[in-house]
Amino acid sequence: MYKTVWILTLLLSGTLMAKEHKLSIVIHGGAGTILKKNLSGKKEAEIRAKLTQALDAGYKVLENGGESTAAVMAAINVMENSPLFNSGKGAVYNKVGKHELDASIMRGSDLQAGAVAGVKKTKNPINAAFEVLKNSPHVMLSGEGADKFAKQQQLEMVNNSYFDTDYRYQQWQAINDKKEVSLSEDLLKTDSKFGTVGAVAIDINGTIAAGTSTGGMTNKAFGRIGDSPIIGAGTYADDRSCGISATGHGEYFIRYAVAHDICARVLYKKNGLNQAANEVINQELVKAGGDGGIIGLDNKGNVVMTFNTAGMYRGFKTSEKKAQVFIYKTN
Amino acid sequence: MYKTVWILTLLLSGTLMAKEHKLSIVIHGGAGTILKKNLSGKKEAEIRAKLTQALDAGYKVLENGGESTAAVMAAINVMENSPLFNSGKGAVYNKVGKHELDASIMRGSDLQAGAVAGVKKTKNPINAAFEVLKNSPHVMLSGEGADKFAKQQQLEMVNNSYFDTDYRYQQWQAINDKKEVSLSEDLLKTDSKFGTVGAVAIDINGTIAAGTSTGGMTNKAFGRIGDSPIIGAGTYADDRSCGISATGHGEYFIRYAVAHDICARVLYKKNGLNQAANEVINQELVKAGGDGGIIGLDNKGNVVMTFNTAGMYRGFKTSEKKAQVFIYKTN
Repeated sequence: MYKTVWILTLLLSGTLMAKEHKLSIVIHGGAGTILKKNLSGKKEAEIRAKLTQALDAGYKVLENGGESTAAVMAAINVMENSPLFNSGKGAVYNKVGKHELDASIMRGSDLQAGAVAGVKKTKNPINAAFEVLKNSPHVMLSGEGADKFAKQQQLEMVNNSYFDTDYRYQQWQAINDKKEVSLSEDLLKTDSKFGTVGAVAIDINGTIAAGTSTGGMTNKAFGRIGDSPIIGAGTYADDRSCGISATGHGEYFIRYAVAHDICARVLYKKNGLNQAANEVINQELVKAGGDGGIIGLDNKGNVVMTFNTAGMYRGFKTSEKKAQVFIYKTN
Repeated sequence: MYKTVWILTLLLSGTLMAKEHKLSIVIHGGAGTILKKNLSGKKEAEIRAKLTQALDAGYKVLENGGESTAAVMAAINVMENSPLFNSGKGAVYNKVGKHELDASIMRGSDLQAGAVAGVKKTKNPINAAFEVLKNSPHVMLSGEGADKFAKQQQLEMVNNSYFDTDYRYQQWQAINDKKEVSLSEDLLKTDSKFGTVGAVAIDINGTIAAGTSTGGMTNKAFGRIGDSPIIGAGTYADDRSCGISATGHGEYFIRYAVAHDICARVLYKKNGLNQAANEVINQELVKAGGDGGIIGLDNKGNVVMTFNTAGMYRGFKTSEKKAQVFIYKTN
C-alpha cells in the first residue's frame, strides 16, 4: 500500500516536473552610444542596482508561480518608477514641455496584446497596456482615450508633472536653445541613447510575455508614434517561437517589423533565436543604418540580448543563475 | 555598319525588355457579410463601376512608367473620394460625430513606409501617409500633428464636415439610439462590413507598393487605433517577397501581424503567395475568430485576393487582362 502511494507520488511529481518550464526573465533599459567614459562610477552603480532590482522583482513573480505578463509588468514598473530611464517617471519632454508615454505588452500563449500610445496621466503605461490586453476588445488605444480607459480600470493616475525630472528638463531646454529642427533624426536619441525599457519572461507554464515602455523622443512633434506601442515592431510574443522587446531608432524597427521578423525566422526558417536576432539586428538593420537592440527568450527559456550600438542597459535571471546585469559591449 | 547597329539595337531592347516587369494592380474596398440579397442592383453596379475606375486610374500610372506608390495612391484616391467606401469621403462617424481617418503606405524596394492615424482635415489620408514616407524621418504620425504635417506638405485640407454623408450619419444615429456599448466588437463592423480600401501594385522596375486607407469604426471611443495605419499589420511591402493590404477585424490583424506574416512565409518558408495568404487568412485567423481578408501581389506580379468572409469588394488588372472586379465569393 505504502509502496503504491510512493510510486504514484513519484509518477505524479515526474509529470509535474515535466510540465514545469525553466523560468527566465530578461530586461533592457535602452541602447545607444553608452560608453564608460561618459558614465560616472556612481551613476553606473545606480543603473546596475536598478536593473538588478527590476530582474529580482520580475523573477520573484515567476518563482511564486505567477504569470509571465505579471513578471514583465513587475520588472518594467521598477524601471518606469525610476528616473534613470526614459519611461514613466523620468520620461523626456515633448515640444510643449509635457510627457507622452507609449507601452505595449503581448502574451505568447494566445497572441493577446495591448498597447497605449501618447498617455499623459497613467503612472505606469505598461499596466495600461495590460488592461487593454485583458479588459478591452481592442489592441491599441491612444491619447486621452487611453488615459480615460486606464482610469476606468482603476489604475493609478497622476498629474503630467509627476513625470518631471530636472535632468530631462535641462535636456529639453538645451535642445530648445539650440532651436533644433524638431524632425531631426538626432532628436530621436536623448543623451546618445534610445530611452526605452522592456522585459521578456517565460513562466512555469511555458507562456512567454514581452513588454516595452517608453517616454519617446525629446521634443517630439507631429504626434510621432515610435515602435514601442506597435505590436510586431517593438514587442512580440508567440510561444511557438519567442518573445522580443526592442529599443532603438523606432522608425527602422517599424519598417523591418523587427520583433515579429525575429520570431518568424525562428518559426519558419528554424533558426535558433540567437541567429535570428543576429541576422535582423546586425545584418538587416546595420545595412539599413538602424541603430538599436533587442532582448528576447525562446520557448526553452534561452536568453538573447543583441544590439548594434556601443552599449545597452540589460540583464537576465534564470533558474540556473542569479541576476546578471550589463551596460557595455561585454560587461 | 547598319547590321551592327541593328544587332546592337536588338541586344539593347532585349536587355530593356528583360528589365521590364509585368505590370499589375489589385485593390479592395472592404470585406464582410456582403450578400447579394442585401445589395440593390443599382448599388452593386455603382460599386463595380467605382472599383473599375480605381483599377483603371492606378493601372494608367503603371502603364505610363509611373511608380507603384503613385499607382497605389491613384487607385485609393478614387475610392477615398467616393462615398461608397469607408475611407475619405463617406468615412464613419466617431463617438462625437466627427471623422478620424487612418492610412499607411509602404514601398518594397527600400522598405520605406509612412502612416497617419486619426487625421481629421486631410482630404486624402493615403497621400499624407506618402508624404510621411517621402518627406519625414518618421514612419507614423498621429492626430493634429499628422494634419499639421500634411498641411505643411501642401496637401489638400478640408473641414471635417467634408467627410459627412447622410448614409453614415443615419448609421451612427441608429447606433446611438440603440445605446450600444462603444467597446462592443460588433461596432467594428458597419453594415456587416469592415470598411477599408487598399491597393497593391508592381511597376515596370519590379517595385511593389502597398497602401491602405480607412475611416475606422463607427462610434469609436478611447482613441482606438486599428490595423490600417500599422506597418506589418494592415500594410506591408517587400520586393523580396510580396505586398499586402488588409481589411477586417483590425485587432486580429495586429496580433497576427498579418501583412508581415504573409510576406515572411513567402520569404522564409518559400511558400507561394497564394498558399501563404491561405494559411494566414483561412487557417490562423479562422481558428482565432478573426474576420477579414487581404489583397496582394508577389514580385512576379501574381495576384492574390483571399478572404474568410462572405464577400470582399475587390478587383485586379494586369498586362494580360482588362480590369476584373468581384464582390461575392466567386463573382
